[in-house]
Amino acid sequence: MKAVIFEKIGSVKLAEISKPKLLNPDDALVKITSTAICGTDLHIINGNIPVEEDFVIGHEAVGIVEEIGNDVKKVKPNDRVVVSCTVQCGFCVNCRRGVAALCEKGGIFGCGKARGGFAGAQAEYMRVPYADMVLEPIPDNISDDEALFVGDILSTGYMAAENGCIRPGDIVAIFGSGPVGLCTLACAKLFGASKIINVDLLDYRLEEAQRLGADIVINANNTDPVEEIKNATKGRGADVTIEAIGDPKTLQACINSVRGGGNISIVGVFPPGVVEISMKEMLIQNLTIKMGLVNVINMGKLLTLIMNGKLDVTSLITHRLDLDDAEDAYHIFQKVPGRAQGNT
Amino acid sequence: MKAVIFEKIGSVKLAEISKPKLLNPDDALVKITSTAICGTDLHIINGNIPVEEDFVIGHEAVGIVEEIGNDVKKVKPNDRVVVSCTVQCGFCVNCRRGVAALCEKGGIFGCGKARGGFAGAQAEYMRVPYADMVLEPIPDNISDDEALFVGDILSTGYMAAENGCIRPGDIVAIFGSGPVGLCTLACAKLFGASKIINVDLLDYRLEEAQRLGADIVINANNTDPVEEIKNATKGRGADVTIEAIGDPKTLQACINSVRGGGNISIVGVFPPGVVEISMKEMLIQNLTIKMGLVNVINMGKLLTLIMNGKLDVTSLITHRLDLDDAEDAYHIFQKVPGRAQGNT
Amino acid sequence: MKAVIFEKIGSVKLAEISKPKLLNPDDALVKITSTAICGTDLHIINGNIPVEEDFVIGHEAVGIVEEIGNDVKKVKPNDRVVVSCTVQCGFCVNCRRGVAALCEKGGIFGCGKARGGFAGAQAEYMRVPYADMVLEPIPDNISDDEALFVGDILSTGYMAAENGCIRPGDIVAIFGSGPVGLCTLACAKLFGASKIINVDLLDYRLEEAQRLGADIVINANNTDPVEEIKNATKGRGADVTIEAIGDPKTLQACINSVRGGGNISIVGVFPPGVVEISMKEMLIQNLTIKMGLVNVINMGKLLTLIMNGKLDVTSLITHRLDLDDAEDAYHIFQKVPGRAQGNT
Amino acid sequence: MKAVIFEKIGSVKLAEISKPKLLNPDDALVKITSTAICGTDLHIINGNIPVEEDFVIGHEAVGIVEEIGNDVKKVKPNDRVVVSCTVQCGFCVNCRRGVAALCEKGGIFGCGKARGGFAGAQAEYMRVPYADMVLEPIPDNISDDEALFVGDILSTGYMAAENGCIRPGDIVAIFGSGPVGLCTLACAKLFGASKIINVDLLDYRLEEAQRLGADIVINANNTDPVEEIKNATKGRGADVTIEAIGDPKTLQACINSVRGGGNISIVGVFPPGVVEISMKEMLIQNLTIKMGLVNVINMGKLLTLIMNGKLDVTSLITHRLDLDDAEDAYHIFQKVPGRAQGNT
Repeated sequence: MKAVIFEKIGSVKLAEISKPKLLNPDDALVKITSTAICGTDLHIINGNIPVEEDFVIGHEAVGIVEEIGNDVKKVKPNDRVVVSCTVQCGFCVNCRRGVAALCEKGGIFGCGKARGGFAGAQAEYMRVPYADMVLEPIPDNISDDEALFVGDILSTGYMAAENGCIRPGDIVAIFGSGPVGLCTLACAKLFGASKIINVDLLDYRLEEAQRLGADIVINANNTDPVEEIKNATKGRGADVTIEAIGDPKTLQACINSVRGGGNISIVGVFPPGVVEISMKEMLIQNLTIKMGLVNVINMGKLLTLIMNGKLDVTSLITHRLDLDDAEDAYHIFQKVPGRAQGNT
Repeated sequence: MKAVIFEKIGSVKLAEISKPKLLNPDDALVKITSTAICGTDLHIINGNIPVEEDFVIGHEAVGIVEEIGNDVKKVKPNDRVVVSCTVQCGFCVNCRRGVAALCEKGGIFGCGKARGGFAGAQAEYMRVPYADMVLEPIPDNISDDEALFVGDILSTGYMAAENGCIRPGDIVAIFGSGPVGLCTLACAKLFGASKIINVDLLDYRLEEAQRLGADIVINANNTDPVEEIKNATKGRGADVTIEAIGDPKTLQACINSVRGGGNISIVGVFPPGVVEISMKEMLIQNLTIKMGLVNVINMGKLLTLIMNGKLDVTSLITHRLDLDDAEDAYHIFQKVPGRAQGNT
Repeated sequence: MKAVIFEKIGSVKLAEISKPKLLNPDDALVKITSTAICGTDLHIINGNIPVEEDFVIGHEAVGIVEEIGNDVKKVKPNDRVVVSCTVQCGFCVNCRRGVAALCEKGGIFGCGKARGGFAGAQAEYMRVPYADMVLEPIPDNISDDEALFVGDILSTGYMAAENGCIRPGDIVAIFGSGPVGLCTLACAKLFGASKIINVDLLDYRLEEAQRLGADIVINANNTDPVEEIKNATKGRGADVTIEAIGDPKTLQACINSVRGGGNISIVGVFPPGVVEISMKEMLIQNLTIKMGLVNVINMGKLLTLIMNGKLDVTSLITHRLDLDDAEDAYHIFQKVPGRAQGNT
Repeated sequence: MKAVIFEKIGSVKLAEISKPKLLNPDDALVKITSTAICGTDLHIINGNIPVEEDFVIGHEAVGIVEEIGNDVKKVKPNDRVVVSCTVQCGFCVNCRRGVAALCEKGGIFGCGKARGGFAGAQAEYMRVPYADMVLEPIPDNISDDEALFVGDILSTGYMAAENGCIRPGDIVAIFGSGPVGLCTLACAKLFGASKIINVDLLDYRLEEAQRLGADIVINANNTDPVEEIKNATKGRGADVTIEAIGDPKTLQACINSVRGGGNISIVGVFPPGVVEISMKEMLIQNLTIKMGLVNVINMGKLLTLIMNGKLDVTSLITHRLDLDDAEDAYHIFQKVPGRAQGNT
C-alpha cells in the first residue's frame, strides 16, 4: 500500500510498503479515507521530534473499518470511524482517571518508537490497537470533513476550553488564533462565555475568528492585548485566559490579563527549555493554571455536537489533495503563514 | 404614593398609601420604574399564599435609587437598578453557602409577614433592605425591559439549567414551556446542550420555544413525550430532564425519560400534599434530583450575558400598562391560557 | 466443582457442577478463596429476585487467577484478586460516564439471566468476563478478609458517602447501621465530616458504629432521630443525610433532618411500589437527592486506603465457614436480627 | 492603650497610643485577648513589606467584642471572637466569587497603608471593619489557643489542601513542614489522603509532622525527596504535591514528584523576581497548579472541626508571653530555626 514515511531530516516521501495486519484481539484494521497534516508533522520533518527512518507518519484520520480482532466490540467491518490521534487502553490507572494522553500502554500514532511505535495515518490502511477506545463510529449525517477534526484538533480545543473552567457569563481571552486557537474559540462558546476575545498577529486568522463568533479580535501588532482586555473588563481582567501558541511572552500576557482568582489554560506547546515567570505575582492573584496536550475522551460528545449543528469548524479547511500528492501537500503546508499549529 | 395592595381573597386594588422610609443603615429607597405580575401574585389573590390585608404585593422590579442608608456601598442615588425578588443578607450561614433563597434574615418581597414582611414592588417606591446584596446596578446599554427579567424569572431559569448540571453535548428535555420553561431553555443553551426538547400542551408556547432555539418541540396532547425523547436518544433517555410545571405526572415523565445516571432538575412549584414516586426505579437508574426556588445570586452574571447579546427573553413580554391600570393588568393576566407560572 | 445453586423458592443447595471455561479473549478464570453472603442472596431465596433453577449464586469474591484469555492485560495467573460484584465492559457509554452499574454489556454475578446471566461466586471457580475491568489485584499486605469487602459492600458505602458530597466540617446523619450503613460511616470519615450520627433500631449495631467512629448514635426506638439531629445542629439540620435501609419512613426522616440546601444520598433498596413524598417541601428547602446501587469503579482506591491503614471494616465479620457448610451459612445468616442488608 | 508599632527597619516597639473608635456602622471594636507573631511580621521588620512608621502591626487575634456599629448583626458585645487576618466586605465581585483575599474594599491587618491601612492586632484593642464578615464567634468549648490559629495559618493550610483537590485515597506530598506545612498536613487528613509525606530540612519539624499524622517524613538533607516519593508510588508520583516554602528548587521538586494529571498547590510565598520552569514538561504531564494566599472564608468550618475534635494544631504553640513582653517575643521568634513561616 501507499504511505507517507519519514525519509530523513528535511523530507518525507510517499512510498509503497506492506499493508498492516491485526496483531492483537482488540486491534482493528482501518482503510483511511481522509487524513490531515498537523504542525507536529513538521516538527518530525525538522527533527525536533525524532522518528525512525521509514516510519509511517500522520495521526489524524477518518476511515472505514476493514477487519476487527476477536475482542473488538464497539465497531464492526464497514463502519465509518474517526481515529483518535493518541492510543489509549481504557483500563490503566491513567485511562481510568480520564487522562487518556498519558495511557501507560499508549502513545501517539505516527510519531516514532519513543511514542509507542504506532504506524501513522497518512497511508491507505492503518492498524488501530484498542479499537474500542481509539475508534468512534461516525453518525450518518456527519461528513468525513467534519469528523476529521474530532480526532485531534477539536479535542484539543475542547480540552483547552474545559481546562479554563469557563462558566456562563465569563469573559475569555484566547491568545493565538491558528487552527487550535480557533477550535478553542468554537468550544469556548459551548460553555456560555459572554465575551470571547481572540488575539493573533495575522489578520486573516482574526477574520476567521470573527466568522466563528469571536466578540472582539485584537491584532497584537497594532494594540497591546493586555491593555485592551483590561479595558473590556473594567480593569479587572478576563475570567479565563488561554494560551494556544506556546510562547513565553504570550504566557506572560495571559498572566497579566487574567483577573484575580481567574484561570489560565495552556495548550500551546512550549519549546524545550525554561520559561521565566513570577510565582509571587501569580500567588498573590490566586491563579489556577491547567495544561495538557490533547485529551480524546470527548470524541463522542464532539460528534454529537456536530451532528446537532452546534459545532462547525469546517471553514478551517483550506486545501484538499490526494494521497498521491502528499509530498505537494507538505510543501503547501510549510508555506502557510504562522503555521505553528497547522491542519490541512 | 400609589401601590397595589391585597384587599381580600379574590381581589387586589390600587390604593394610596404612605411612602416608605429607610429603617436601617443598609437600606435603600428605590423609585420603581417597571414591575411585573408573577403567577405567585395570583396565588396570593386566590388565598393559596396567605397575605395580610392592605399588604403591598409584587416582587419583580426595576427602578432608580432615591436614597441610601449610611452603610450602603454598592449603589448610590440615581443609579438604575434591578431588585431581586428575594431578600438576602449576605452573611448568614445560608447566604455564605450560596443558598440565598433560604437567607435567615430574608424573605420574599410582597408576600406577607410570614415571608419576611417586606412590602412589595407594585408601587411607586419600595424600601430595599440589605441593598448591597439585593440591588444590582444595570449597565447603560441594557433596557429596563431586559433587566426586569433578571430579578426573578431569569434567575429561576438559570438555576433550573444549572441544577441540571448540563455539560456541553448533553440532550436536555424541558417539561413546561411557560415563562419559566422558556427562560430555562434560554439558559440551557448557555451550557452547551447539543439538543433541547421543549414540551407543553399549548402550541403558542411551543412556537415561542422554537423562536428561542428549542431543537425539538412536543405538544403532549398529540404525542407521548417520553416515547419521543427515547426515540431522539437511541432509547437511552435525555441526559437532563427539567420539571418546570409542578405536576406529579410531569415529574414521572421526567423520571421515565432521563437516562441512567442522569439528572433531574425541578423548579415547578408542586401543590401541597404528597406525590407518589418509585424510589426503587430511581435508585436502580442512579438518578440525581436537584430542586429549588429562585436563587438570585447570578443577577450580575445574567446582566453581563444580556449586555453582550448572549441572552434575550424580551420576546416574552406581551402587555405594557401603567401602574394606574394595575387592576386591569391583573384581569388580563388571569385570562392568559396556561398561566401557572406567568409574568407580565 | 462445588457450587451453591438456587434450588427453588425457599432453598439453595451445594451441588457438584462442571468447572467453567474461558469463553472470550477478555475472560479470566478465578479460583475462589473467599466469598460472602449478601442480603440480595436472601431476596433470591425468597423469590423477590427471580433466578433460574440451578443457577450459581453469590457476587462477593476474592480468589487467585487460574487462567486468562489472550486479551487480558491487567492480571496474570497466580495473581490474588478481588472480583467486583457487577460486570462492566469499560467502553460502553455508561462505563465511559463512570456509571459502571449500568454497563450496557454487564450485569450482576449470581443473579440470574435477567441480570446478565453471569454465574456466581459461591463456588470453587468462576468465569470473570472483562477481567481488566472486573478484577483488581490485591496488594501483598492486604488480607483476603480485608479485600473481600471491596467488591461490593465497601464500594456501596463509599458511593453513599461520595453521593452525599460531604465536605470537611459537614455534619452527616446515616439512617441504618447494618453492614451498608457501617461501611458508609467508615467512608464518610474519609471526607472530613466533623460529626457523624448513626441511627438504627438495634443496639449491637450502634455499638459497632461507635467502635467505627460514629460521634453520636441514636436508637430510634428510644429517641426521635429528627429531633435529636436538629438539637445537634442548632435546629438547622445535618448537611448530609444518608438513607441506608430502603424504607419510606426513614426517607421522610432524611428529608426532615437535612438542612436547607443540603444533600440526601440514598443507597437503601426500596421495596417495589411507590413512596409518598412532598415535593413542595423539598423544593422550598433546595434539596439535592442522589441515589444509586453499588459503583465498583473505586475498588483500587479502596484497596489503597486499606493498605495504608486508613480504612478497616473487618470488625463486621462475624462467622467463617467452609464452602462445604454453605447451607449452614445461609441458615445462620437468615437468623441475624435486622439482616436486610447482610454480609457474612 | 498599648500596641506594638513599627519603629524603623530592624525594630518594632511597644508604645502607648490612643484607643481606636468605631468609624462606620459595620465596624466593631474588639478587646484583644490573644495574638501571635507571623513570619510576615518579620518581613515588615526587615523592610521587605514597607509599613509606615508608628503603624500598629499584627494580624492574628482572638478577643472580646466591646462595641458594635448600628449595622453589625452577627456579633454583639461580650461575644468571644476570632478575627480574620484579611478584611473582606462580602459584597464586592471578588468576595461574591469566594476570593476573599482579593476583596476590593479590603486588605490585611497590620501591614501598612498599601494593604488597606487597617491597624493591627498586636494591641489592646482593634477596630474591625465589616465585622459581620471579619469576625467569627467562638463556640464555648473552644479555647482561645485553638481559635487563634483559625484566623490565618489554619485557613492557609486548609486552602492549601483544598487547592490540591485531594480526593480520598490520594497520596499527598507536602514540601515544607513549618507551621504552614504542618497546618496543611492537619487539613490534608480531612480530605481522606491515604498517605501524607512531609518534607523538610529540620528534624524537629518532621517529628512534629509525625505526631500530627504524617505517614512518611523525609529530611531532604539526607534523602532525595523526589526519588523517595517515586519509590512510595510505584514510580508514578504523588497525586498532589504542595509547596509550602516559596522556593524555586522546592517548586521544581513538586513538579518532578507529582504524577501525570496531578495537582500542585502552592502557598509558599516566593521572593520577588522570576522563577525558571519548564512549561513543556508540565504541559506533557497535564498538570494543574493552584495557588493563593490565605482565604478566610472557611473560619466557621474550621471552628466546627476543632469543636468536634477533628482538628487540633495547638501542639504548634511554643511560647506564651504578655503583650508587655512583645519586644522579647520578637527576639525569641527571630531566633527560631527555619522560621520563614512562623507563628508564636
